[in-house]
Amino acid sequence: MTQHFDLAIIGSGSGNSLVTPDFDGKRVAVIEGGTFGGTCLNVGCIPTKMFVYAAEVATTVREAGRYGVDATLEGVRWADVRDRVFGRIDPISDGGRRYRQDGPNTTAFLGHATFTGDRSLMVELPGGRQETITADQVVVAAGAHPVIPDVVTESGLELGDLVHTSDTIMRIDELPRRLAIIGGGFIAAEMAHVFASFGVHVTVVARGSQLLRHIDTEISQRFTDLAREQWDVRTGTNVLAVGRGDGGGGVRLHLDSAAVVDADLLMVATGRRPNTSCLGADAGGLAVLDDGRLEVDAYGRTTAPGVWALGDVSSPFQLKHVANAEARAVAHNLVHPDDLRRLPHDHVPSGIFSHPQVATVGLTEQDCIEQDRPHVTHVQAYGDTAYGWALEDRSSVCKLVADPTTGRLLGAHLMGPHATSLIQPLIQALALGTPVDELARGQYWIHPALAEVVENALLGLRLERTA
Amino acid sequence: MTQHFDLAIIGSGSGNSLVTPDFDGKRVAVIEGGTFGGTCLNVGCIPTKMFVYAAEVATTVREAGRYGVDATLEGVRWADVRDRVFGRIDPISDGGRRYRQDGPNTTAFLGHATFTGDRSLMVELPGGRQETITADQVVVAAGAHPVIPDVVTESGLELGDLVHTSDTIMRIDELPRRLAIIGGGFIAAEMAHVFASFGVHVTVVARGSQLLRHIDTEISQRFTDLAREQWDVRTGTNVLAVGRGDGGGGVRLHLDSAAVVDADLLMVATGRRPNTSCLGADAGGLAVLDDGRLEVDAYGRTTAPGVWALGDVSSPFQLKHVANAEARAVAHNLVHPDDLRRLPHDHVPSGIFSHPQVATVGLTEQDCIEQDRPHVTHVQAYGDTAYGWALEDRSSVCKLVADPTTGRLLGAHLMGPHATSLIQPLIQALALGTPVDELARGQYWIHPALAEVVENALLGLRLERTA
Repeated sequence: MTQHFDLAIIGSGSGNSLVTPDFDGKRVAVIEGGTFGGTCLNVGCIPTKMFVYAAEVATTVREAGRYGVDATLEGVRWADVRDRVFGRIDPISDGGRRYRQDGPNTTAFLGHATFTGDRSLMVELPGGRQETITADQVVVAAGAHPVIPDVVTESGLELGDLVHTSDTIMRIDELPRRLAIIGGGFIAAEMAHVFASFGVHVTVVARGSQLLRHIDTEISQRFTDLAREQWDVRTGTNVLAVGRGDGGGGVRLHLDSAAVVDADLLMVATGRRPNTSCLGADAGGLAVLDDGRLEVDAYGRTTAPGVWALGDVSSPFQLKHVANAEARAVAHNLVHPDDLRRLPHDHVPSGIFSHPQVATVGLTEQDCIEQDRPHVTHVQAYGDTAYGWALEDRSSVCKLVADPTTGRLLGAHLMGPHATSLIQPLIQALALGTPVDELARGQYWIHPALAEVVENALLGLRLERTA
Repeated sequence: MTQHFDLAIIGSGSGNSLVTPDFDGKRVAVIEGGTFGGTCLNVGCIPTKMFVYAAEVATTVREAGRYGVDATLEGVRWADVRDRVFGRIDPISDGGRRYRQDGPNTTAFLGHATFTGDRSLMVELPGGRQETITADQVVVAAGAHPVIPDVVTESGLELGDLVHTSDTIMRIDELPRRLAIIGGGFIAAEMAHVFASFGVHVTVVARGSQLLRHIDTEISQRFTDLAREQWDVRTGTNVLAVGRGDGGGGVRLHLDSAAVVDADLLMVATGRRPNTSCLGADAGGLAVLDDGRLEVDAYGRTTAPGVWALGDVSSPFQLKHVANAEARAVAHNLVHPDDLRRLPHDHVPSGIFSHPQVATVGLTEQDCIEQDRPHVTHVQAYGDTAYGWALEDRSSVCKLVADPTTGRLLGAHLMGPHATSLIQPLIQALALGTPVDELARGQYWIHPALAEVVENALLGLRLERTA
């Protein structure tokens, strides 16, 4: 029997927020083939940051002596950290699921959905049962999944045993002695920080010449230099083969540098691919881009009438704050066909909660060079501000990029403590178009708060024009 | 012999920044009767924050177990902390002095200055020598000093031995076992945090019913509650007498509650008074207000023609960032008599680097009630945001006050980690007049950065009008 709905949502992450009061009295299907709540809640932003903060605490203990505080790190109770994190998260996921199962206007389908035709879906439920669903409108918010490189899938090692991704690594039973990570992006950087801070010997193998190579090149280089002081970092390196370690325990990576890396566990962090390969996109009339994303227009409409998409399955930004913002736009668009809102893709910041922390928004210096755009930059050291003295900081920076002819900010790139919060006044200035000089001198900056590094960075820009 | 200058500056704190390129080729006298660099550098904001950060480290070690990190605090090397702090600061003070002594256009007078007539000063130099100085313009930036209450001066205890102020407490030779602090303001709160974190038993005796009673009442109450968990806090209490402790060692406070407090050292933090009593204000033609401040107009002009004042000696704000901003205005005004700039006194924030940290800007809820002004408030718990979960935060808040009829922010009051940096987007919004809804939704907030507490606080305000 086919059930018909006013709205069917595939994915319970950001998609779950589409059930607004506009749908009171209407029928909404929420379809989730994985864990209710999506990536961010269950295996992404939220649990990682809870682990990261514990890592910050461990790092602070280790470095306490620099500040005249004698402290000893006796150890990290991994199972306690893990259980604290998931003891908080799992009930939220469960509660969210039950709320949709028992909701006055929602029906939850806990299975994988495939398009079988226009706004027509088949859901594989547990036990092999299938359910056919049609809806006036469908939103695909199915997310993405970690890519496993061929060299790993061909290794014969079992995933979840010795080989992990960010989906599973946070739930392991005990800390390995040695962890190898393939990948040089933000997930690799955050997980390397967590495990190294917890006392694990971490080796990071990255193809690129630098870690975090999608951010400002100078910040990426500085980050990579600091990473080398903390982890065994092999950049410009490919993994040729993966096998069991000597004696059959652990894992051995054979690198193209002819070196081998032995570890007790392997984590793969080589990117995330949109969940479109098993979606029946063709049958549903949904075009898929070369990179695997669903094609959407500026308003979130796919190529199939009445079918929308948002979040990692379609967005150029794999970021929860973007998925949330896209969900707000789509929630509006679903019920205001004559007043569509654009997906907000301007001035999108991102944060990397590694050690050091990184935050970035807007154009990088290399963007400006590539675009042949007039620009000035200034790199302000945290260590040249009063609170930076208190931190005994030697390496953290706030790099700004501005257009000297307009006096406007173009980009901001911070690396150091609290970068993800310190960047907010700069995001605000970019979004609202505030001129640099007004930003620096038109407001007070508390002395000697760490935010003074931003004030000083702004004052360091050499502009031709002021407001 | 009388020396004549184009400009004479009394005080080398914020006043020292008045020697701009506008005075190249002119003659400037810089007069300093105390330590070169003023309060902020030598005994104020900067060294306190360096001690406070070491205190944060010690506190993090103590609380590490909450996060699954087993750590032991073995002790704090007080002398190392102190020597690190002053090993950094003292050379800056010395260098600043030499730079003025040897400057191409500056003459440093290291002694106390007294007005003897219109723009005429007598400086008492070391060794009893006196120097008479006249100048076309004089700027008084002589700062303030800690008040010692009568009950302490009458005690017969010697200052600097058992009785300290913020001027001396940071340079003591060893940590006391017990420290008593008289006062309930920000200096008391910061120093109590430093010493308690370092393992000292701290007793705070305050006249008011709450600590930090000049800030938002609700935040003050919450702060006081948290302070009681850390320190022995006696509010609503006056000190009737101060004497030697039993056996002649230490100090004993007799309270009006009939209780006594025994401590090894006493710190007095009962306010700071402008340095005007020995300034010869009458002779110079400078009016002094009832609270001891020099009277200045909106541009920093005292009642004496050609004599200006700025900073703690005249400002309604005893804050370094205000003194700096006043100095920038006065530096301009000194050379632009026909284009005077006002001292910037709007939207002045302040921070208190205690445990928890506090930051505040704009109107409090009680201000709005007193002014019979339409307002709404929202108190957002850090603990209801993702990063607050990571922090396992149970007590931190962001309280906002807004005008529901205009949709504009009126005030922001944060208490919790990084409050002094998290408040910056709100300071910016107040200064630039950004509407609350544009502030919340017209920019991205990085998920899950701690700044989300500010985003959520903004979204929690119930406004009648949006942009």
